[in-house]
Amino acid sequence: MSAPKKVVLAYSGGLDTSIILKWLQTEYGCEVVTFTADLGQGEELEPARQKAEMLGIKPENIYIEDVREEFVRDFVFPMFRANAVYEGLYLLGTSIARPLISKRLVEIAEMTGADAVAHGATGKGNDQVRFELSAYALNPDIKVIAPWREWDLTSRTKLLEFAEQNQIPIAKDKRGEAPFSVDANLLHTSSEGRVLEDPAQEAPDYVYLRTVKPEDAPNEPEFIEVTFEKGDAVAINGVAMSPATVLTELNEYGRKHGIGRLDFVENRFVGMKSRGVYETPGGTILLEAHRGIEQITLDSGSGHLKDSLMPRYAELIYNGFWFSPEREMLQAAIDKSQEHVSGTVRLKLYKGSAVTVGRWSDASLYSEAHVTFEDDAGAYDQKDAQGFIQLNALRLKLLAARNRRLKD
Amino acid sequence: MSAPKKVVLAYSGGLDTSIILKWLQTEYGCEVVTFTADLGQGEELEPARQKAEMLGIKPENIYIEDVREEFVRDFVFPMFRANAVYEGLYLLGTSIARPLISKRLVEIAEMTGADAVAHGATGKGNDQVRFELSAYALNPDIKVIAPWREWDLTSRTKLLEFAEQNQIPIAKDKRGEAPFSVDANLLHTSSEGRVLEDPAQEAPDYVYLRTVKPEDAPNEPEFIEVTFEKGDAVAINGVAMSPATVLTELNEYGRKHGIGRLDFVENRFVGMKSRGVYETPGGTILLEAHRGIEQITLDSGSGHLKDSLMPRYAELIYNGFWFSPEREMLQAAIDKSQEHVSGTVRLKLYKGSAVTVGRWSDASLYSEAHVTFEDDAGAYDQKDAQGFIQLNALRLKLLAARNRRLKD
Amino acid sequence: MSAPKKVVLAYSGGLDTSIILKWLQTEYGCEVVTFTADLGQGEELEPARQKAEMLGIKPENIYIEDVREEFVRDFVFPMFRANAVYEGLYLLGTSIARPLISKRLVEIAEMTGADAVAHGATGKGNDQVRFELSAYALNPDIKVIAPWREWDLTSRTKLLEFAEQNQIPIAKDKRGEAPFSVDANLLHTSSEGRVLEDPAQEAPDYVYLRTVKPEDAPNEPEFIEVTFEKGDAVAINGVAMSPATVLTELNEYGRKHGIGRLDFVENRFVGMKSRGVYETPGGTILLEAHRGIEQITLDSGSGHLKDSLMPRYAELIYNGFWFSPEREMLQAAIDKSQEHVSGTVRLKLYKGSAVTVGRWSDASLYSEAHVTFEDDAGAYDQKDAQGFIQLNALRLKLLAARNRRLKD
Amino acid sequence: MSAPKKVVLAYSGGLDTSIILKWLQTEYGCEVVTFTADLGQGEELEPARQKAEMLGIKPENIYIEDVREEFVRDFVFPMFRANAVYEGLYLLGTSIARPLISKRLVEIAEMTGADAVAHGATGKGNDQVRFELSAYALNPDIKVIAPWREWDLTSRTKLLEFAEQNQIPIAKDKRGEAPFSVDANLLHTSSEGRVLEDPAQEAPDYVYLRTVKPEDAPNEPEFIEVTFEKGDAVAINGVAMSPATVLTELNEYGRKHGIGRLDFVENRFVGMKSRGVYETPGGTILLEAHRGIEQITLDSGSGHLKDSLMPRYAELIYNGFWFSPEREMLQAAIDKSQEHVSGTVRLKLYKGSAVTVGRWSDASLYSEAHVTFEDDAGAYDQKDAQGFIQLNALRLKLLAARNRRLKD
Repeated sequence: MSAPKKVVLAYSGGLDTSIILKWLQTEYGCEVVTFTADLGQGEELEPARQKAEMLGIKPENIYIEDVREEFVRDFVFPMFRANAVYEGLYLLGTSIARPLISKRLVEIAEMTGADAVAHGATGKGNDQVRFELSAYALNPDIKVIAPWREWDLTSRTKLLEFAEQNQIPIAKDKRGEAPFSVDANLLHTSSEGRVLEDPAQEAPDYVYLRTVKPEDAPNEPEFIEVTFEKGDAVAINGVAMSPATVLTELNEYGRKHGIGRLDFVENRFVGMKSRGVYETPGGTILLEAHRGIEQITLDSGSGHLKDSLMPRYAELIYNGFWFSPEREMLQAAIDKSQEHVSGTVRLKLYKGSAVTVGRWSDASLYSEAHVTFEDDAGAYDQKDAQGFIQLNALRLKLLAARNRRLKD
Repeated sequence: MSAPKKVVLAYSGGLDTSIILKWLQTEYGCEVVTFTADLGQGEELEPARQKAEMLGIKPENIYIEDVREEFVRDFVFPMFRANAVYEGLYLLGTSIARPLISKRLVEIAEMTGADAVAHGATGKGNDQVRFELSAYALNPDIKVIAPWREWDLTSRTKLLEFAEQNQIPIAKDKRGEAPFSVDANLLHTSSEGRVLEDPAQEAPDYVYLRTVKPEDAPNEPEFIEVTFEKGDAVAINGVAMSPATVLTELNEYGRKHGIGRLDFVENRFVGMKSRGVYETPGGTILLEAHRGIEQITLDSGSGHLKDSLMPRYAELIYNGFWFSPEREMLQAAIDKSQEHVSGTVRLKLYKGSAVTVGRWSDASLYSEAHVTFEDDAGAYDQKDAQGFIQLNALRLKLLAARNRRLKD
Repeated sequence: MSAPKKVVLAYSGGLDTSIILKWLQTEYGCEVVTFTADLGQGEELEPARQKAEMLGIKPENIYIEDVREEFVRDFVFPMFRANAVYEGLYLLGTSIARPLISKRLVEIAEMTGADAVAHGATGKGNDQVRFELSAYALNPDIKVIAPWREWDLTSRTKLLEFAEQNQIPIAKDKRGEAPFSVDANLLHTSSEGRVLEDPAQEAPDYVYLRTVKPEDAPNEPEFIEVTFEKGDAVAINGVAMSPATVLTELNEYGRKHGIGRLDFVENRFVGMKSRGVYETPGGTILLEAHRGIEQITLDSGSGHLKDSLMPRYAELIYNGFWFSPEREMLQAAIDKSQEHVSGTVRLKLYKGSAVTVGRWSDASLYSEAHVTFEDDAGAYDQKDAQGFIQLNALRLKLLAARNRRLKD
Repeated sequence: MSAPKKVVLAYSGGLDTSIILKWLQTEYGCEVVTFTADLGQGEELEPARQKAEMLGIKPENIYIEDVREEFVRDFVFPMFRANAVYEGLYLLGTSIARPLISKRLVEIAEMTGADAVAHGATGKGNDQVRFELSAYALNPDIKVIAPWREWDLTSRTKLLEFAEQNQIPIAKDKRGEAPFSVDANLLHTSSEGRVLEDPAQEAPDYVYLRTVKPEDAPNEPEFIEVTFEKGDAVAINGVAMSPATVLTELNEYGRKHGIGRLDFVENRFVGMKSRGVYETPGGTILLEAHRGIEQITLDSGSGHLKDSLMPRYAELIYNGFWFSPEREMLQAAIDKSQEHVSGTVRLKLYKGSAVTVGRWSDASLYSEAHVTFEDDAGAYDQKDAQGFIQLNALRLKLLAARNRRLKD
């Protein structure tokens, strides 16, 4: 790879990406463009602008954007249409944010004439893969710089030395090692590393940053109603909201009731296991609600096909293949299924749990006329079950007869 | 179908199967053998013996058996190795009991020279399918009698009249319609019908028979440790137990903490939707614990394959195909994966939730040496990630280049 | 089911459906509308009109339509985009025609105010299922009459008696039993029954109606080029053609070279095995050609996903679920994959075989620059393979280390 | 990676692996053990021994083994039980041989105290991945040396220079570039590169090394009978044979009749497309025969599940994951299905094609009694089809009614 001339850096304004910024300038002597996104991580962005300027970035090379609506509308919601969970439990909160960041990095590179993008993910994790696969899928000629895989700043001491040598201000609380590492966006907060590295040990309370402890949640349950249109949540308690607002609101409900905590050991795409703690308050409620509305609006053919495709779909997102033709194929199938996934779900929130307690829809397929224990007025002829069973049994009978014959 | 001469009836001792017993004697004039099983439904069985005798069944034709260990060991545990859930949420508590009952019915038929078996499931539900597919798969020549699809006792009034005409005692509380219908065994209790028929309405509290309301559960969490060997739970808090005892104990923990309630609308195999309330206290804890131990003992190849096979496996069990070659094929694959699924999981039980908070195993694949944020002493070379990403990206780059070329 | 008042009959003009026509008039006293479709079965349709009139059908109740273009464009081509084969070998020629016939029956019923449709399929086969599932999926209130399941004309003798009693003319060659039963349309001819009922015996030559015996095919191979756009064949040897014309032409090539014969034992949806002989001359060439063009225009992500979905897709079509939401979901995924499946394939046709010998496309993903044995000018860095392998191997190493540890 | 001390080299005796041998001695100064396997590639092995000795390998470090029976019994046959084809057409002839070679390399390394293995595959292909994943899966501590990824002998000229400098004899026909590259074993011969690099151009006749051109095959068909037991071929024309002998015999039949040629563009695991020509004469017959016997001995449940698992299974083998837990899981499922796949298939071989024309088995599930067009004596009640269809249709009717309701 020839040396990059101009690099768009995913820049948080924090110490690590400030060091990367300086290192790119020093190591490659290249012009740096910063991109700082509001994905709902809950931090102010203006300090990032000031810091970038202080580190010598030209004002026209500083991009700061609120992408929360795009994030939820074009990434989170399509994924939730699939009821995607990775390895049975993880709601993919980090995985789903990376493609959006890469997309903007590549777009800004094309706008500013940059030939490279850079990110602050390490060489051990999944995020490097997600950033880079997305970037290459969108621009096959882009260069991607991953300083953590390249440089020799391999210890905290060296990093701090580099920062001091380069006049990068270091907040007092960054001098020591953080007890764990955090990633956050509107969908979730993830924590991993150090105090979490022994999967036998319960995560200490202070690791949870975004939800109250179930024990500290209200002693009374709260009930909410979530309304869906074509598989996406569009209103809470009857009040219509934008995608990001819906998720923000659900996060607040989830936070308050201690919903969406997960202590998890997962398989990274790079081949090792890692242990993380995830908090996905609004997403956990959303998944439950989406399943609830699908229960009455999807038939078994669609529903079972979706269930069988989901693990592959979730794996693709986890592994960084959002911008792949196979993810898009699966999305086409999933979206097709959501045409009538519209209606309202009532949920009970209580001390860590969100459960569906009622659901209704104009598009409901539930037929009380058919299922009733009372007289069904001929809606269903029980005698049909006889033939249904006989023909489903036929091959089993032929098998049994064959097996008996062979034993004799 | 020619008329049966001798029938083995799945007999609970309750009013409905007593009516069936009499109806078989009357309608077909055939000898009846009763089979009453203790599957952990929580009812005494001796009254069934007395009632059968009173209805004219010869003592040698009355079979009463405690099959709890067989149920858990040969049906429940194999299913839990797969983490089987139907339509995302249902733990298949009723589905998994039917094949065992059919197996014993067929075996008793063969022992007693009966040419038919009979069950009390209606023509609208899944249970008729499960009973009959299992029976035919085990004996292709057996006759199956499903009185509810045949007779004209189609209203409560007619049933009671028939009972009175035939001197079948009717308990006082059976005179009126029950507000809902119940099935129970060691794994779960299910309730459906009548007061539950409107899926928009929350299920009334009195429907839940087996778990305390989360609001009434203890205000302090309780922690337990479940130990697995080859995918099956073998001990709780270090005390080794038989399969049925493990499940019984977990049920008690779940009951106390309000764990395992599910309000659900599902797709029946016969084509309609129905709404049920399920309580699976011990099973819900067991599923969480099994996932917890798999997190450290299964690699991603096995785990992801299991996840992708699970929906089909669960569907087969739900639809009644336990004794089918494809379920056995999937079981062979699943069992193969469980060879090293051994170790212990620590869970927190609190007000409706069971969550894993720790897990450890001699067979753990988790490598702190690889994942650590600290110096990994060369266990993992971050530079490898570069090539890994480049080759995973290659096809995406070729796609992007092709698509760009076509646009020009 | 209440008695139908007006019935649309799928009418071939042959003896069997003429008997059905009369039986409907006699048995139900209902008005009959006939629908005769040209699906490319190679029979003239006007005799059907005359015969219908002779049997008392009013001219305005006789529908005769050439649906060949619709058949190929909306049914055959979408199916071939999936490379659909049932049980490894069968190209679904009969299965794919039934939904179209049902669709027109239902549409004509709605136009003419009929409340029922009728077909001539027996109670043992798949076609009854395909006709009826399609009809119900398109009109949930339609009645479907399947005379072969209802009447008592259960022997050839009784059928002929009924025909004679009702002045239905009987062609001389229809007096005896045909040695086998035939279904034909533009995609294929299927033969089954009687002389084919022993699957151990080779099918006699006279069963093959549509292709020359490979031994009698030309001694010289012939080469053709098939051009695709978005997954559909649009030209042969550079000459653009309509869908039905493409298939007609390919049929002629296939016929001449003895291509597309299949002697097959399959699993019917109703639970039994049957043996059939299929001739799909053009379809066999089309499948090979489509695979050929996909080889260079689909990437592995799309291609492998398609391969894994195909068996389910084929099963749905075979079982009669063309008009089901899950087939439509899969179609959405498949169609999404075909956006760039455009280009030309060169095939060699010779004595029973059609094989791809060349393929080219503007949308090709094949990169000689990458794959070449010669100097690739840096297109591909072989050192990347090191990291790719290391990280793919990591979990296998961890597994091996764990397994060794446990053995010690 | 620290320098290896003793290396087991997969040694063919040819120029390239002789250069590698010398390079290992020179570059790493390490002791070399050679392993030369007879996999049925059709070359004598003794010259490899002489050449190894001549290059300074101690006699006790030269391993020459006939592994043909192991190859067919433990690798080829298990794979054929699955009817495995990669990307619709490729029979995986190269892929399936690599794990066996790696297994022996690792075993010999353990026997001889070697700490490394080496292979002659390049950095662009799949074989490096297959060799190395297999090696690491069997011994997590083994070192693998892939000289083609390491050395600077990157042109033909440099290789020949190195050979001359090191007294490695160069056969005359090896001085120039071969027009294509070949790999062969008992299952297949593959050719790729150079004259084959343009996928639009037909492969020249001289590329085919192992089968006659169909045009040159006999003008008369030949019929053979292949007998299976539990999914494996055990006899031809009634003569029992060992696994390798069966395949050798089938190869001769296939060769003579021009069967098993494939001109193919495939997706390599490393991300690029390549074009190859494969000849799998016996394997092509075997696959057809295996499908033939499964047609009458597998029920639809097993068969359809196998079909749906096959693409993943084939992909795993292609990608080098033979020794992975997920391949073993799938194998367990597949093997379970083969318990009754026993019987005999009659095939017609003619000018490039092998087609089943008859099949019979004591374990047949085909029931003429059920399928017959004649009187079936009550084996099958056509009225059962009514209920079967009604209940399969129910959800489709409910969908149609819902969709109509929403349109109004």
